[in-house]
Amino acid sequence: MTLSRPITQAAGALRDKFREVRATSLALAAPLSAEDQCIQSMPDASPTKWHLAHTTWFFETVLLQPHAKGYQPFDPRFHYLFNSYYEALGPRHPRPHRGLLTRPSVDEVHAYRRHVDEAVIGLLEEEGERGEGGLDWAAIEPIVTLGLNHEQQHQELLLTDILHALSCNPLLPAYKPASGPALRLAAVPPAVRWLSRPGGLVEVGHAGADFSFDNETPRHQALVQPYAIADRLVNCGDYAQFIADGGYQRAELWLSDGWAAVQANGWRHPAYWLAPDDPRLGFGLQPQQHHQQQHASPQGAAAGWHVFGLNGVRPMEADAPVAQLSFYEAAAYAEWAGARLPTEFEWEAACDAPGIAQMTGHVWQWTRSSYDPYPGFRPMPGIAAEYNGKFMVGQLVLRGGSVATPAGHTRPSYRNFFPPAARWQFSGLRLAKDL
Amino acid sequence: MTLSRPITQAAGALRDKFREVRATSLALAAPLSAEDQCIQSMPDASPTKWHLAHTTWFFETVLLQPHAKGYQPFDPRFHYLFNSYYEALGPRHPRPHRGLLTRPSVDEVHAYRRHVDEAVIGLLEEEGERGEGGLDWAAIEPIVTLGLNHEQQHQELLLTDILHALSCNPLLPAYKPASGPALRLAAVPPAVRWLSRPGGLVEVGHAGADFSFDNETPRHQALVQPYAIADRLVNCGDYAQFIADGGYQRAELWLSDGWAAVQANGWRHPAYWLAPDDPRLGFGLQPQQHHQQQHASPQGAAAGWHVFGLNGVRPMEADAPVAQLSFYEAAAYAEWAGARLPTEFEWEAACDAPGIAQMTGHVWQWTRSSYDPYPGFRPMPGIAAEYNGKFMVGQLVLRGGSVATPAGHTRPSYRNFFPPAARWQFSGLRLAKDL
Amino acid sequence: MTLSRPITQAAGALRDKFREVRATSLALAAPLSAEDQCIQSMPDASPTKWHLAHTTWFFETVLLQPHAKGYQPFDPRFHYLFNSYYEALGPRHPRPHRGLLTRPSVDEVHAYRRHVDEAVIGLLEEEGERGEGGLDWAAIEPIVTLGLNHEQQHQELLLTDILHALSCNPLLPAYKPASGPALRLAAVPPAVRWLSRPGGLVEVGHAGADFSFDNETPRHQALVQPYAIADRLVNCGDYAQFIADGGYQRAELWLSDGWAAVQANGWRHPAYWLAPDDPRLGFGLQPQQHHQQQHASPQGAAAGWHVFGLNGVRPMEADAPVAQLSFYEAAAYAEWAGARLPTEFEWEAACDAPGIAQMTGHVWQWTRSSYDPYPGFRPMPGIAAEYNGKFMVGQLVLRGGSVATPAGHTRPSYRNFFPPAARWQFSGLRLAKDL
Amino acid sequence: MTLSRPITQAAGALRDKFREVRATSLALAAPLSAEDQCIQSMPDASPTKWHLAHTTWFFETVLLQPHAKGYQPFDPRFHYLFNSYYEALGPRHPRPHRGLLTRPSVDEVHAYRRHVDEAVIGLLEEEGERGEGGLDWAAIEPIVTLGLNHEQQHQELLLTDILHALSCNPLLPAYKPASGPALRLAAVPPAVRWLSRPGGLVEVGHAGADFSFDNETPRHQALVQPYAIADRLVNCGDYAQFIADGGYQRAELWLSDGWAAVQANGWRHPAYWLAPDDPRLGFGLQPQQHHQQQHASPQGAAAGWHVFGLNGVRPMEADAPVAQLSFYEAAAYAEWAGARLPTEFEWEAACDAPGIAQMTGHVWQWTRSSYDPYPGFRPMPGIAAEYNGKFMVGQLVLRGGSVATPAGHTRPSYRNFFPPAARWQFSGLRLAKDL
Repeated sequence: MTLSRPITQAAGALRDKFREVRATSLALAAPLSAEDQCIQSMPDASPTKWHLAHTTWFFETVLLQPHAKGYQPFDPRFHYLFNSYYEALGPRHPRPHRGLLTRPSVDEVHAYRRHVDEAVIGLLEEEGERGEGGLDWAAIEPIVTLGLNHEQQHQELLLTDILHALSCNPLLPAYKPASGPALRLAAVPPAVRWLSRPGGLVEVGHAGADFSFDNETPRHQALVQPYAIADRLVNCGDYAQFIADGGYQRAELWLSDGWAAVQANGWRHPAYWLAPDDPRLGFGLQPQQHHQQQHASPQGAAAGWHVFGLNGVRPMEADAPVAQLSFYEAAAYAEWAGARLPTEFEWEAACDAPGIAQMTGHVWQWTRSSYDPYPGFRPMPGIAAEYNGKFMVGQLVLRGGSVATPAGHTRPSYRNFFPPAARWQFSGLRLAKDL
Repeated sequence: MTLSRPITQAAGALRDKFREVRATSLALAAPLSAEDQCIQSMPDASPTKWHLAHTTWFFETVLLQPHAKGYQPFDPRFHYLFNSYYEALGPRHPRPHRGLLTRPSVDEVHAYRRHVDEAVIGLLEEEGERGEGGLDWAAIEPIVTLGLNHEQQHQELLLTDILHALSCNPLLPAYKPASGPALRLAAVPPAVRWLSRPGGLVEVGHAGADFSFDNETPRHQALVQPYAIADRLVNCGDYAQFIADGGYQRAELWLSDGWAAVQANGWRHPAYWLAPDDPRLGFGLQPQQHHQQQHASPQGAAAGWHVFGLNGVRPMEADAPVAQLSFYEAAAYAEWAGARLPTEFEWEAACDAPGIAQMTGHVWQWTRSSYDPYPGFRPMPGIAAEYNGKFMVGQLVLRGGSVATPAGHTRPSYRNFFPPAARWQFSGLRLAKDL
Repeated sequence: MTLSRPITQAAGALRDKFREVRATSLALAAPLSAEDQCIQSMPDASPTKWHLAHTTWFFETVLLQPHAKGYQPFDPRFHYLFNSYYEALGPRHPRPHRGLLTRPSVDEVHAYRRHVDEAVIGLLEEEGERGEGGLDWAAIEPIVTLGLNHEQQHQELLLTDILHALSCNPLLPAYKPASGPALRLAAVPPAVRWLSRPGGLVEVGHAGADFSFDNETPRHQALVQPYAIADRLVNCGDYAQFIADGGYQRAELWLSDGWAAVQANGWRHPAYWLAPDDPRLGFGLQPQQHHQQQHASPQGAAAGWHVFGLNGVRPMEADAPVAQLSFYEAAAYAEWAGARLPTEFEWEAACDAPGIAQMTGHVWQWTRSSYDPYPGFRPMPGIAAEYNGKFMVGQLVLRGGSVATPAGHTRPSYRNFFPPAARWQFSGLRLAKDL
Repeated sequence: MTLSRPITQAAGALRDKFREVRATSLALAAPLSAEDQCIQSMPDASPTKWHLAHTTWFFETVLLQPHAKGYQPFDPRFHYLFNSYYEALGPRHPRPHRGLLTRPSVDEVHAYRRHVDEAVIGLLEEEGERGEGGLDWAAIEPIVTLGLNHEQQHQELLLTDILHALSCNPLLPAYKPASGPALRLAAVPPAVRWLSRPGGLVEVGHAGADFSFDNETPRHQALVQPYAIADRLVNCGDYAQFIADGGYQRAELWLSDGWAAVQANGWRHPAYWLAPDDPRLGFGLQPQQHHQQQHASPQGAAAGWHVFGLNGVRPMEADAPVAQLSFYEAAAYAEWAGARLPTEFEWEAACDAPGIAQMTGHVWQWTRSSYDPYPGFRPMPGIAAEYNGKFMVGQLVLRGGSVATPAGHTRPSYRNFFPPAARWQFSGLRLAKDL
């Protein structure tokens, strides 16, 4: 019986965490209308409502159905509708058609969430009471934890995806009117400082008993050469100079696929920047989007640009990190700046470098590392085997974490990944150099 | 002053008609959620909300802005958002992106409608009071009448488009649960009777002072050869035999482009039919969709088919007209049946043939006539010049009118038109033969 | 026995005709290298070598295999390779891949032609000797005649297709260097004269015992309204004025699909025109393409244009008929000119109008008639059923005949047809007007 | 003067090498007709003639124009036609249209080669005579050497590309009839032996004065974990078992992008395998392709398969290395086999492992390494800067060398690279395992 208490405490803590994470998802959707939550602006993005339902489906399918005796699914058809990409779990609604699901409604999805939440909390409490007799704790705890980390990933996607959807509306409506300066940074010195880092064997990857994704493991040694890394992110002012210097017109700065993307898509600036002559500047701005600027207006290359973000359209702030960049743009910028992107191991090894700033909480940082498996990598067992490993080709690693990442979700060893042309994420860059 | 009364009466009648047509649009949208009203299931279809706004934009742009002194637009940006295809009226939101407009919301569109309705009614009442001094009546009346006919066309499109959107949802939700047998016909004898019609010069097209579209004019003579026309539409039972006889596998029955469409799209039956083994039959049926059938179950080729429609999924009714057919399918069916489609002039000349049935109110009827201009055709003046004429290539004429067509909207001379591959309309066919 | 002589004469005449037509195909290919004859520049066009083989396949498949006892196919695999679109004759090499057939070589195709030619001539001579005992003459003669007309159609396609292929080469090589002014016309007065034509019932279509295609039949009456038709074709000088007047920038002149094609494809002038600033003018001109011009240089709108044709690049000649136009461009030009295209029946009825010129031998003339079946139309029996009828949707009728049409191949009732966007044919226009 | 001799010898040796490599390209094209040499079967592949001209263009542009005084270009327009992807060298003929260049003819391209060959040899001989006074030798020698290595790469591409082109012909013609068993290997024991390799720091990359490409440098240390590597390649018999075990139907074996490629393209076996029921087996085989087999027929899973290759269609040989595999297929096979692909560093470190076989000369071997830059990588200076570096994203490294690779062209440090879906190369795999 004495053993029952720690388990009960653990169950209680997990239950509280569960409630908190689940509530956060709803809070993120709260500023959005039912219409906002329904649409899908491109096949790579998903509707808000779909995120709310899919994260629920994950708990229902991976936790409740195998582990909660007598659990009754909310609606068996949701198994088909809200599977994302798990081949082992059978056929599913095609990804590009997620925006056509006006039914179930947002209200029904909310009811679905409540149904599943109650069952999960019931399971956790029952398990908690049972104490050491709770034979399933060892199975349940990792699934709930995975489900919560999974939901946090979708919280960020919910924001990036709705921002993309709103960016397709010529009115450029704000996700949430700004109540003050948004995305503002602690003042940083304008000049980059280069931090020298020694070469040698470094330990990378996740170790220890706390949660990580499988792609961060096993922890292992990696060899790096001596290098320097910038103490801060590339900011909008920096990037505006790249544009002003013809960055988008100079083939020699670009990777071949990147230059092809520039030509094919007519890229001239980051995805959500509005050039000074953009017709929507006269057209689409709602009064609440004209936030009182307390910063001096940007000068020179930075003048006249605006940036669309979660708070709507705002004058570009020169010292805000540049975001919504593809890897191709990040790499071209680095080439133009006479530098390069850090590898993911250089980035990880610099995490605790004295003087380094903006390592997380602003933008994900493209690295010069392809998303390959770590030596000895093994996917998670069971259905989660499809979680990370099967995407390990054709993508690049991003490190750090963004303003849209839930607090506490990331780690220095955390590996985010996207294809090189993706530019609707909160993705930017930090420079590095050989020494 | 004696002349003022007729004008006042005319204005009053037009105002009443205006109120009625405008209210009908809202009534058609009423069963739909905000989510339903927002989405666009393919570039050819438009969201419900867009139909509600675009028809309003038409009155605002064509009637109020030029003719109502001091009219203040509801929101000048709507001019860009809700133009459909009028090149003369400037740039517009791209058609394939109509489904991305979560803002303005349905509520805002309702407010837009009220704003414009009040202004139109105000204009009509002012004009009515002014009597013969109302110098603009001659200009205003045709525009309002055109706007109402335009809105009625969109009422049908609203239904066809939302039906397509709902058909993309694997749950196959009903637009409106059936309160009784839907789309049911007065009993018709199962066998087609062929009505013989003489050849010679016939008068076709619209004449007279009442409203018609420009594409129905000028009224003129056309020469037809002696022919026979079926007294009824091809029904689902007929069409099921075509399918059972390998109709979709026999290239020799099809026009070349039609056969290519069959191959490319995997067509095996009309757009909204569900084969007996369709997985959605076990999966997607809501209780209310299982309507109590009072008809004997279809036998033979017709057995086991279901059809999705405005009342959801229902067992196929053999004597209901087949609908949601492309021209290609209509022509292949006619070939299989040893007959052909009537020309649009044969159809029009048979309108008053004794014994002919189902000429309107069931499905639009594909004819074997390309949508070419009539001799001496002149587009409507002004902006309405873009209404019909510019589409006169690559389309086929349909005649009649469907269950989704507002009562009183069509005429024997009415020319509907769609490209030959279109199959999301209430479109079917009637057979004809040479004599 | 007396009856044998006419049959022998008929067989002899047909044999001579056969030799002549077959030799013409080879003569048309003679200026081309094996490489030229192999490639396919777009799915709508076919390689020269394929035309030479397919026309041979037609005789082998439709004539020799059913009618020549003991005939041994040259290579049974050619049955698959050189079928064009005859569904009844089984699977075939996909049209877009015709340019990948480097084998059989041109030499092998020549051997194939000789093999089939000998067999056909043998059959005709045997039949001719047999006299009235020749029981198959009634079957054979129409097939050979059809085959020869079929081959003549491919002779024109051979030229239009190779011209398109050569136009894709930035060197713009000439099919055949000019030995003198090419495509030159008898001098015509610069101003168009309008020829008035009465309305009423006119006889159209083919009648009589000589050959025609099935789509020209049955001969029947058609009703036309009084109209005027231009005595000459629209020429390059005329068309240059349309361009100079912003014709390609003015949406109001275009059919909706036409304007979409202009936007999507960046059309700014006819397919083979080179604007004065075209870089290939400095780049690609071979000495032999600079033909000594004896005409005064065009003035005004016409100045500086060049046109690529079978003789290579040459300065535009203002009084040469404009060619390589789509229907959309022809219709937009007519709209700009305050006129319209004639219907196919107006064109046919004007064929013998006093003073009318350039009705054939210059360019095919787009009409305002969709390619619909004639009243009572019946396809040819047997395999030839697929020849014309199955294409009767989505295309427009062209009348006349071009410089590339074999002499004697066309008739006033001849109906050529292409989709409205096709612009690699020798296709132009003549204006008409309502009276 | 004493110094002149070594230079003369070096120049003489380079001249001889130049003649040999240039002659080899022509010898590879010799079995092909002018038609074969002209076509392009997909945008990724190039015509034989284009390879012959482009490699010549490289010498003309990079060597002769800057370094040979008074050099007259053969035809200035070829500068535009035969540039491949060098942005710094100006606009160029679009890659997908290379197959439309029937002119210049093969004969003209041969003349172009002779013209450039004479100038290069003249330059080398002049330089050789000049001795130490030859101030340009240090500039010229690396360019000529690069040009020859470049040409050798195109020699392999010439073979892979023409093989693809011939594979698109349903007749499946042989590039060159077999005069004996083709692609035959020294007998290897059927069972794979696993060679254990220690972990630790290994030296990788190229060092030394002899030629290498920039992407192999700088030589540096890499850390590998202990591993085992297979002593031989995966062969056709192995791969047939993967197919027989449902390899192409089991999603769990595939990377996500790989499974999508399988579904989208209908992959069921390697690109050039013919299933036992392939209709071309009865249809397309030329007598000379039925080579007298001296091997026992494969048993079991391997029975009935045929493989198309440079000698035409031949019964599959179970112990021949499997080729024409994509990375996706290689990775799925490895997963099925309970193993993985080696990283490029594991591969390189195993090059001299005792007992290892088939490291080069059979097929390129996909590795589990993305094509990322080496630490400290710097592109070659000048125009060659675009040679390798700009492709370093989205591709995978292959190591080894194939039957189509010119003898002596590769090294253990050689890095070939292709996108993961590429499957028209002589590409296969070798397995590895963690220890």
